[in-house]
Amino acid sequence: YISGGMREKTLTMDTLNPQVKAVEYAVRGPIVTKAGDIERGLQQGQKHPFTEVIKANIGDSHAMGQKPITFLRQVVALCSFPELLNSPSFPEDAKQRARRILQGCGGQSLGVYSIASQGVDCIRQDVAVYIEQRDKGVPADWDNIYLTTGASDGIVSILKMLVSGQGRSRSGVMIPIPQYPLYSAAISELEAVQINYYLDEDNCWALDINELHRAYQAAKEHCHPRVICIINPGNPTGQVQSRKCIEDVLHFAYEENLFVMSDEVYQDNVYSPDLQFHSFKKVLYEMGPEYFNTVELASFHSTSKGYSGECGFRGGYMEVLNLDLEVKAQLVKLLSVRLCPPVSGQAAMDVIVNPPLPHEPSYLQFHKEKSAVLGALAEKAQVTEQTLNTVPGIKCNPVQGAMYAFPRIFIPPRAVEEAKSLGMSPDMMYCLRLLEETGICLVPGSGFGQREGTYHFRMTILPTTEKLKVLLEKLRDFHIKFLKEYASLEEPKR
Amino acid sequence: YISGGMREKTLTMDTLNPQVKAVEYAVRGPIVTKAGDIERGLQQGQKHPFTEVIKANIGDSHAMGQKPITFLRQVVALCSFPELLNSPSFPEDAKQRARRILQGCGGQSLGVYSIASQGVDCIRQDVAVYIEQRDKGVPADWDNIYLTTGASDGIVSILKMLVSGQGRSRSGVMIPIPQYPLYSAAISELEAVQINYYLDEDNCWALDINELHRAYQAAKEHCHPRVICIINPGNPTGQVQSRKCIEDVLHFAYEENLFVMSDEVYQDNVYSPDLQFHSFKKVLYEMGPEYFNTVELASFHSTSKGYSGECGFRGGYMEVLNLDLEVKAQLVKLLSVRLCPPVSGQAAMDVIVNPPLPHEPSYLQFHKEKSAVLGALAEKAQVTEQTLNTVPGIKCNPVQGAMYAFPRIFIPPRAVEEAKSLGMSPDMMYCLRLLEETGICLVPGSGFGQREGTYHFRMTILPTTEKLKVLLEKLRDFHIKFLKEYASLEEPKR
Repeated sequence: YISGGMREKTLTMDTLNPQVKAVEYAVRGPIVTKAGDIERGLQQGQKHPFTEVIKANIGDSHAMGQKPITFLRQVVALCSFPELLNSPSFPEDAKQRARRILQGCGGQSLGVYSIASQGVDCIRQDVAVYIEQRDKGVPADWDNIYLTTGASDGIVSILKMLVSGQGRSRSGVMIPIPQYPLYSAAISELEAVQINYYLDEDNCWALDINELHRAYQAAKEHCHPRVICIINPGNPTGQVQSRKCIEDVLHFAYEENLFVMSDEVYQDNVYSPDLQFHSFKKVLYEMGPEYFNTVELASFHSTSKGYSGECGFRGGYMEVLNLDLEVKAQLVKLLSVRLCPPVSGQAAMDVIVNPPLPHEPSYLQFHKEKSAVLGALAEKAQVTEQTLNTVPGIKCNPVQGAMYAFPRIFIPPRAVEEAKSLGMSPDMMYCLRLLEETGICLVPGSGFGQREGTYHFRMTILPTTEKLKVLLEKLRDFHIKFLKEYASLEEPKR
Repeated sequence: YISGGMREKTLTMDTLNPQVKAVEYAVRGPIVTKAGDIERGLQQGQKHPFTEVIKANIGDSHAMGQKPITFLRQVVALCSFPELLNSPSFPEDAKQRARRILQGCGGQSLGVYSIASQGVDCIRQDVAVYIEQRDKGVPADWDNIYLTTGASDGIVSILKMLVSGQGRSRSGVMIPIPQYPLYSAAISELEAVQINYYLDEDNCWALDINELHRAYQAAKEHCHPRVICIINPGNPTGQVQSRKCIEDVLHFAYEENLFVMSDEVYQDNVYSPDLQFHSFKKVLYEMGPEYFNTVELASFHSTSKGYSGECGFRGGYMEVLNLDLEVKAQLVKLLSVRLCPPVSGQAAMDVIVNPPLPHEPSYLQFHKEKSAVLGALAEKAQVTEQTLNTVPGIKCNPVQGAMYAFPRIFIPPRAVEEAKSLGMSPDMMYCLRLLEETGICLVPGSGFGQREGTYHFRMTILPTTEKLKVLLEKLRDFHIKFLKEYASLEEPKR
């Protein structure tokens, strides 16, 4: 009890769960909080050297002005308010999807827990059909499909299953560096051991199989490596993995008895015309039954990315191969504690795996909207790369896929020192100053991990083309000014 | 590597996270899986001594035929497909709600991550206004409101923050017995120490303050009790806590420096005309500033129960009082890793806290629908209690609130022995046989916890009145037959 007879707090920084304390998540970190403060300040008439905050920190398409896919929203609205099934203003194919989804729900209502904790049966069936088509006939069993609350939920559930052991036998999780910080956050929370394998920046952020071996061998000394996570197309790095490289990873996982988690939420976001998305599952299949029938693989997809960008519905699925049967029952048990993923998100996921077919009334509009979104993203990917590479001291790999550029930025030694004296990472200082001076909100590379002594930021390519050009111009001017400032400061020293 | 050169599985029952293995969740446990199997069997023409499975295992109103509240669904449909804002067939008050919600979303789309990980600002503001009105003017600050993915998500987040320490200083969590098994499941997963306090079955499942003291003192020997969880109205026990008793609990929590978690998801489900719901927060306020400004309290609500029964949207909120400011930032960080709760669920939550007002066009219909649901539930609560109490060997407390009866059942010693020889709890055997012989699906009391040597089941009062009567009749016949069977089996022994 503290002085004055006041009750002491039960929950303080000293008594907080240390695993929670250890969690870091830069995508919504301090810089984003600051951006929100500045935005509110602007609204209240505060003066800044800019008139709006441009948020390029998070893969949130609709927030940056992308319009929803009409067909998807029609289906969700019909499911939400089935009286609309009688309305002539909704197309028949949307109604057919909605009827089918409602049939799959107890009481024909979106307001039920889905009967299975894994999600509505017919939606899981649609997912399986989608995967078979995507993978050119590789069989998919809907019993292996689990609908999830966004991809994050599935990723954390699988990691949770895999963490066990103490000390040197504690589970190790191999993740790419740079990575999407959900992985490091989940690893912290679960007290697993994070094993970094570095992507090859000089080679378009490719996954280097030798680096995998190095990381694995080094980690074996102090933990039990059990899982390898791959993000393809890459977040934050935007690379699209080659088929050969996927095969190498799967061979490695086979040899070292690793569980494979392939985060494929950007599977529809491939922009380079000479590249294509290969699913880990398809490659595994093509490696033959010795591989396909044994390697434990979980792959993840989501409604949040692709061309629909429906983050708010929190829809997603995972497909899990070769899971031990008893373990499968344990997974279902674990999921059932949270009852089920949001059923409206399940419905949205259904539309993404079961879009209008060429003979259906909504096809033309759907196709047009989808192509427009993907076409604009491809254009913005190119503009971003090209413009960034005109700036001295910035070097950007091609944005082959996903929604992000992750350029390397040169930060002068004097600026590095200043940041260190302020107790922050140099790229954090860079991004904070960028925000304060231009209103542009990016995420420092340190939030994703990077090789010691290198600095980056992640920016989304989601602003409208017009706004993106403004952003890139302001960024260029800022960077040149920044370089000059810290260069000139150094001169007196010489 | 196992024989035949086949790759060994990475994830087996031996290597599975032991905390996941320890989780139990009876509400969707083996008996429910079996009910699903039987249901599919019936559809495929298999013969059973009944023609349908009646699922009274889970609080899933729409699955049992309850119709959605029209106004709520109109708002969600308008938010999902804003073109409908131009449709004359939607009432103006629904449109006004939808416009307001969309205004609160970036890009005016339900498809965004809400700007704050805690949820859309204006919805949190509406929640605060709702709480102030419910609690007759007790101030509520929307900065303390966090929207959640159903109540479960909020409960687990708060528990996660509170678990720390090792051995004798490990966090202990006080939960009622019987309890809703989300609590025990989360405690297992977090490796916290479960501290049972037993509700007083002989006194309508009241919380007995002496029992709290007993449980606390006993637990202090081997852990650090830090949290007390209360479910009011009770799940699975259906009691409504008295104001006096709430005050006692809060006084106890104050004295012993406990964090209070009050699960109030059934706050609209009170059936006994002489009882009313008191929120923990209101009582805390009335105890004076020494309490109101110090006791750390998190209370939980949800879209899933009440009169709307919208489980599938996974909407909910929590209000957290007196949280340390730094800890609050940690909570926001933790929530931000999952980005945000489903925005359609947030919209549904908004309607529940901001329903049509008497002067608005939707008021009459809304009021009629709400009263019809709550009236029917009150009637079914009474029918259930009364009918069960006519059965020899069954004793049921009044269903004062929530959605469940939790009657005590007499199981003959011979049946208890038989169950034990089968390695199952006697009430599990009872419920399994009930399911196989009648098609009625209930959850054994052992899934919620009960005093040693007593047996119960939980049944929902959600089937339609007609179906509920059939259920109760079949249950009576089964119980009488069950008693006879095990009585006569004992006779030869004598």
